[in-house]
Order: sequence, then C-alpha cells, then structure tokens
Amino acid sequence: MLTIYGDSISGNCLKVKFVCDRLGIAYRWIETSVLKGETRTPEFLGMNPAGQVPTVKLSDGRVLSQSNAIMLHLAEGSDLIPSDAYERALMFQWLFWEQYSHETVIAVRRFHKTYLKKADADIDPALLPKGERVLAVMNDHLARHRYFVGGKLGLADIALVAYTRWADQGGFDLARAPRVQDWIARVEQDLGLARAA
Amino acid sequence: MLTIYGDSISGNCLKVKFVCDRLGIAYRWIETSVLKGETRTPEFLGMNPAGQVPTVKLSDGRVLSQSNAIMLHLAEGSDLIPSDAYERALMFQWLFWEQYSHETVIAVRRFHKTYLKKADADIDPALLPKGERVLAVMNDHLARHRYFVGGKLGLADIALVAYTRWADQGGFDLARAPRVQDWIARVEQDLGLARAA
Repeated sequence: MLTIYGDSISGNCLKVKFVCDRLGIAYRWIETSVLKGETRTPEFLGMNPAGQVPTVKLSDGRVLSQSNAIMLHLAEGSDLIPSDAYERALMFQWLFWEQYSHETVIAVRRFHKTYLKKADADIDPALLPKGERVLAVMNDHLARHRYFVGGKLGLADIALVAYTRWADQGGFDLARAPRVQDWIARVEQDLGLARAA
Repeated sequence: MLTIYGDSISGNCLKVKFVCDRLGIAYRWIETSVLKGETRTPEFLGMNPAGQVPTVKLSDGRVLSQSNAIMLHLAEGSDLIPSDAYERALMFQWLFWEQYSHETVIAVRRFHKTYLKKADADIDPALLPKGERVLAVMNDHLARHRYFVGGKLGLADIALVAYTRWADQGGFDLARAPRVQDWIARVEQDLGLARAA
C-alpha cells in the first residue's frame, strides 16, 4: 500500500491526499510535522535527503517527492489528466506556475503569519502585492473557464486549490477575487471537502 | 512553424532551444529582452498576460508558457522522456525541484550579480549558502548516476544544466562540486554546446 509522509497543515501534502481520495487509491498517512522537526530526523533524511514533505513510499518501497510530481504519478491514466496533448501542456503550465509563482507567495505568507506567528511588519512586504496579483491572474482566467484546464476538475485545480482555499490565513482578501471564491467552492464540493473558511 | 519568444541570456529560454535542436524541431526564435522591457509591451502581454519568456506560439497559433511545460510538450514521445512510469515520475520530481529550489537561487543570484550589477552586499545573503546546498544535492546524486534519471540524457538534465553551467556567473564555485562539473561537460557535449565557462 502507498504510504504518504505528510503534514496536515501543508497544502502541498494535502494535494496528494486529495488525489488519492478522488481516485480511490488506498494509502497510509504518516503525520510528519515540519514544525516539530520530524522531516529532519536521520530516518526521514535517509528516505528523502531533501527533508521535505510530502514524500511517498510506493507499494514496492520506492520513494518519490515533490507534490506535483507525486500527483502526476498517482493520477496517470485517470481523468484528472487531460487526454488532449495541448490541454495536458496547459495543465503542466499551471502546475509549474503554481510552484514558482503561487506557492512561494500565498503559502509562504500564510506560514509566516499563521505558524511562525510573525507580525505583518516582519514579513517580506513584497508578498502582499504579489499575492494580490496571483489571485488576480486566477480570477481573470476563471472569467473564461469553469476549471483551470479542459472544463473539468483536474490536477491544475487540485494543485491550485490547496493553498488558495487558505489564502485568508495569509492575510489575502479573497472577496476581491470573487470568481476564485466560486471556483474554490466548486472544487471543494467536487473533492468532498468541508469549506475551508 | 514553432515560434519561440526567448531571451538569450535566460537559461529558461535556452532550455526550449536545446530541446528543439536536440529533437530536430524547426523553429523561429524571436529575441525578446526582459531587461529592455520587451515582455511588457501590449503585444506581448496580449499573447502571455504573465509577461514571461519563454513563451511559444505553436504552429496552429496556440500559446504556451513555462519553460518546463513547453519542454514536456515538445519532447512528448521522444527519448528525452523516460518510458518507465517511475522514471518519468523522477523526471517530474527533478523538474519541479529545479523550478522551486534551483532556479530561484542559482539563476536569481546570477541575474542580480551579472545583469542588475548589484554588489554582493546588496544581494540576499541567504542565496549563497542555499546555492551551495543546491549544488551539493546535485553532486551527491551524481555520485550514483551518470545523468539525473534513467542513465541517459533527458529533460531533467536539460532543465538543470541551463543555469548550472552559468553558476559561476552567480558567484557559485563549481570546483566544489566536481561531479556536477563533469556532468555539465557531458550534457554540453550531448547537446553540441560550446563550453559555458
């Protein structure tokens, strides 16, 4: 059986859980706290030298890391990945954008504010306007699309919703991105999740 | 024919060129300078609202961005993508690691130093030790692997070599990662590139 080493406060980790739950993939979840240093133990580093969650151990014992890579592997052949080559490329485009431009802003500010308990003045001031632009990019895209790619739920939505649904915890005002709010509700319903906020 | 909007000083853009040259894909290269603001013109933003290079226009006029997404699309079905599912997952793992942990350090410090001409004291001091760890991760991996995945040249190598070969321009000492140096030479030879340094 698949083993997921994940931290429940991490959107990156929950992405993997969401995909498994959606596709009916059985797994064992090993709660692994970043804040408690559980990703820095010799045992964990022996499995993943990068010391990051999520890390998964496949049923054959082989190890894989990087949330979006894990999702791509687990969802291969499922309807969460578009069958059309161009739509698949657009899915990749959003997955890389999520890791480069979204997670580094929306998730990072949430982590500083909610988990490191930093005052706003002690957080990189660039993150707030960057996050507003990130949410505006998503809101603009959703003016023409019900889901991010191909008109139905896919990996791009799952990757993006993971931290967007917690954007308020990072001090971002989702009310300024109403189409993003609607899309979050849609994806949460598709995934059978309780409302985040 | 494929059109690549790219900046020749950008490793992200050259990745796309390297894949095309390797696979014999014909293309037109439109030099698009970030420093001259050519990614911020109304024409460019009309094509890619994110204002980033590389951006490609496919032969049917459809547009794609994000360097690694473009590579994945162009290389589909080629031997630059492993046919084994687990090896393909490892390729994705390295591609996401490259964008999240490598480019944001190795490429960013080079840009500040070489193109924005900043003094070392004006560059985020965290970048230097982070970059040394990035190069150490690669050096460790290459102790057991001739290429990053599957024993032969693939997209993970092309993505990673793009900025690693210029690491010295960011003030990183490649001599401390000798296996990385050897791998750069190997990949440059495979791709028919002149030595970077």
